[in-house]
Amino acid sequence: MFQPDLPQGTAEGTISLLFGHPDPSTLLTPAMRDALNSAMNSPQFYGAFQYGPEQGTRALIKYLVDKLNREQQLGVQTENVMITAGSTGALDMVTRLFAPPNSIVLVEAPSYADSLHVLRDHHVRLRGIPMDDQGLIVTELERILAELNVANDLPIMLYTIPNYHNPTGITLAESRRVEILNLADRYGFLIVEDDVYHDLGFESTVPSSFYALADGKSVLSIGSFSKTFAPGLRVGWLVADKNIIDQCVNCGVLQMGGGSNPFSAQVIAEFCSKGYLEPHIETLRAIYKQRCEAALTALSRYMPSDVRWTHPRGGFFLWLTLPPTVLASEVKRVANERGLNFALGEGFFIDPADGRHNLRIAFSFAALPDLERGLELLAQVIETVRRHT
Amino acid sequence: MFQPDLPQGTAEGTISLLFGHPDPSTLLTPAMRDALNSAMNSPQFYGAFQYGPEQGTRALIKYLVDKLNREQQLGVQTENVMITAGSTGALDMVTRLFAPPNSIVLVEAPSYADSLHVLRDHHVRLRGIPMDDQGLIVTELERILAELNVANDLPIMLYTIPNYHNPTGITLAESRRVEILNLADRYGFLIVEDDVYHDLGFESTVPSSFYALADGKSVLSIGSFSKTFAPGLRVGWLVADKNIIDQCVNCGVLQMGGGSNPFSAQVIAEFCSKGYLEPHIETLRAIYKQRCEAALTALSRYMPSDVRWTHPRGGFFLWLTLPPTVLASEVKRVANERGLNFALGEGFFIDPADGRHNLRIAFSFAALPDLERGLELLAQVIETVRRHT
Repeated sequence: MFQPDLPQGTAEGTISLLFGHPDPSTLLTPAMRDALNSAMNSPQFYGAFQYGPEQGTRALIKYLVDKLNREQQLGVQTENVMITAGSTGALDMVTRLFAPPNSIVLVEAPSYADSLHVLRDHHVRLRGIPMDDQGLIVTELERILAELNVANDLPIMLYTIPNYHNPTGITLAESRRVEILNLADRYGFLIVEDDVYHDLGFESTVPSSFYALADGKSVLSIGSFSKTFAPGLRVGWLVADKNIIDQCVNCGVLQMGGGSNPFSAQVIAEFCSKGYLEPHIETLRAIYKQRCEAALTALSRYMPSDVRWTHPRGGFFLWLTLPPTVLASEVKRVANERGLNFALGEGFFIDPADGRHNLRIAFSFAALPDLERGLELLAQVIETVRRHT
Repeated sequence: MFQPDLPQGTAEGTISLLFGHPDPSTLLTPAMRDALNSAMNSPQFYGAFQYGPEQGTRALIKYLVDKLNREQQLGVQTENVMITAGSTGALDMVTRLFAPPNSIVLVEAPSYADSLHVLRDHHVRLRGIPMDDQGLIVTELERILAELNVANDLPIMLYTIPNYHNPTGITLAESRRVEILNLADRYGFLIVEDDVYHDLGFESTVPSSFYALADGKSVLSIGSFSKTFAPGLRVGWLVADKNIIDQCVNCGVLQMGGGSNPFSAQVIAEFCSKGYLEPHIETLRAIYKQRCEAALTALSRYMPSDVRWTHPRGGFFLWLTLPPTVLASEVKRVANERGLNFALGEGFFIDPADGRHNLRIAFSFAALPDLERGLELLAQVIETVRRHT
């Protein structure tokens, strides 16, 4: 994700539905300031300045173990959890260590553009699995695995965003998760579960994670404080089998640099131990639920009848499919001129052509009236572009 | 570098000359606390919580541009500098982006063990170039390059620690730097200059950097605040040609995560802008100079006449060569039993056998009396081991 600088040709005062940034009002809150002050005055703060343990700040690991076991009825122990430099650091580390150059990594089609970029930087081969409104299509996965098996070229891992998927907002059905785990077992690939939106569901329940369903076997589950505390501290985590965590803890980057960021992690540990995280998450869920509902209402009201969109049950994003005659790139060009920005679908596919009639709306960042006005404007732009096609 | 947990079999109250950790008294100083308080109360602090610009926190980049130009008479601009997750993050990024799997990376023999580990994690092939007391031996480099050239298998980069080298403490002669640059130009490889000890020289001058001598061409220069502020914040930097910085800024990890750590970087930017860094560095130089002198005095006083050691002009380390009949591993085993720890030479070589009569002494961390007592004890252990060989 990027600094929200305006792209060239974008008008002043543009409404940005572009980035998956947290709601600005939820950062640097009084509770966060209080946690920072407490951290500074705690005896543990000195340790936050020295090289940390490679596994990460122990107080934060302990908090996460309790949280995961309490909320997901897991049986993880300290040895199953490590702190990472955001979900980014976790994905980068996991790819570096477990996906050798030229190995095949399966991804949802579409998947998060920047994750594809991280994976590509490690010289792996990407293969996309189509999705429907229940997430990754298992029969498609099965077909592709059979094909790769015949070619003796099986994948090393599946990278998936099961909850409130980026970019689509879709949640992978729990029954499919079980089927996918069976395929992983049969064909011998790891599942890397990017679950950074886990806590940001709009309903009281979220499907069981791959990690929970597999009882931790061959699943690497990635979490993050970027969405529930603040992105700028770069703190995430990885949950996995002890053997996998040990390999990660002993990688070159962590041996050289110590823990991912002892300073940031100590501040977040203080925030959590003071009991601030749970009510903050409740606030976030309410905010994003309201925004998502407002977005869905605006879409129903303004969009032409041949435009389709997803109905997220959590997270930051929803996904639009334009009529076959309307190019998203053309819609974006005109929208930018009129003061609206969003992400093209193209960047989320291995082959950009697959996304040329799609666009991603981030409802997390823009103020509510801007979000509604932006979607009204978007509907007008789509009609304008259609008339000129 | 690691949490200084005692290894198994180490006595209570062990003197640790093992890790290159900063002097404990230099962390979380009143000036650092003041900078943290100022940062918290500045209008820029909010931005430290959001995704940052991929290139890094602008105020810190600006400070570094001024510092580099002032101190090294460079002509770098904002476009030549980026913030990284410590020197570790810089080396990891540079290797990921510029050293494809199976390419050859040249390193000094010995080189920093954890850097070798980072490089190995990226599936490159390492080739060591022998050193003498002036650093990397250019005729050896030339010989190896000629050999690789014949095999049509030239290296992609040279990773070097030119100043106060880890593990040896040796500084590469400036005349050799010029010769190495000529070879880099002739054979077309990049120079990655790990210059994290640059500011910690004991004399008033330090040789010109590769970056300065090459006027920035094909040199990537890595710096760090881990030695001059605190390791726990994980903030370093990379200086290079605009084209290289652009490629780094646009890598997957930074696109996905934003700047390496906006929160840490903002705190350090505040420390620097308040004028605290320069006097802090002067304090550090005086502390480490005194420790190094004490170590050299103790070595002269206690060591057997056939033990040799380096005479660092800066940094954290010195390097011992034991007599050919004495194994460093045996010395370490006995020393651990008697309450002393240090790093074996073996880990710093591609082939560990090349370092079996070497050991690294970190004079940066242990208190002065412990340092002196530790070296006296080391001399006794060497004699003990020799008698039992």
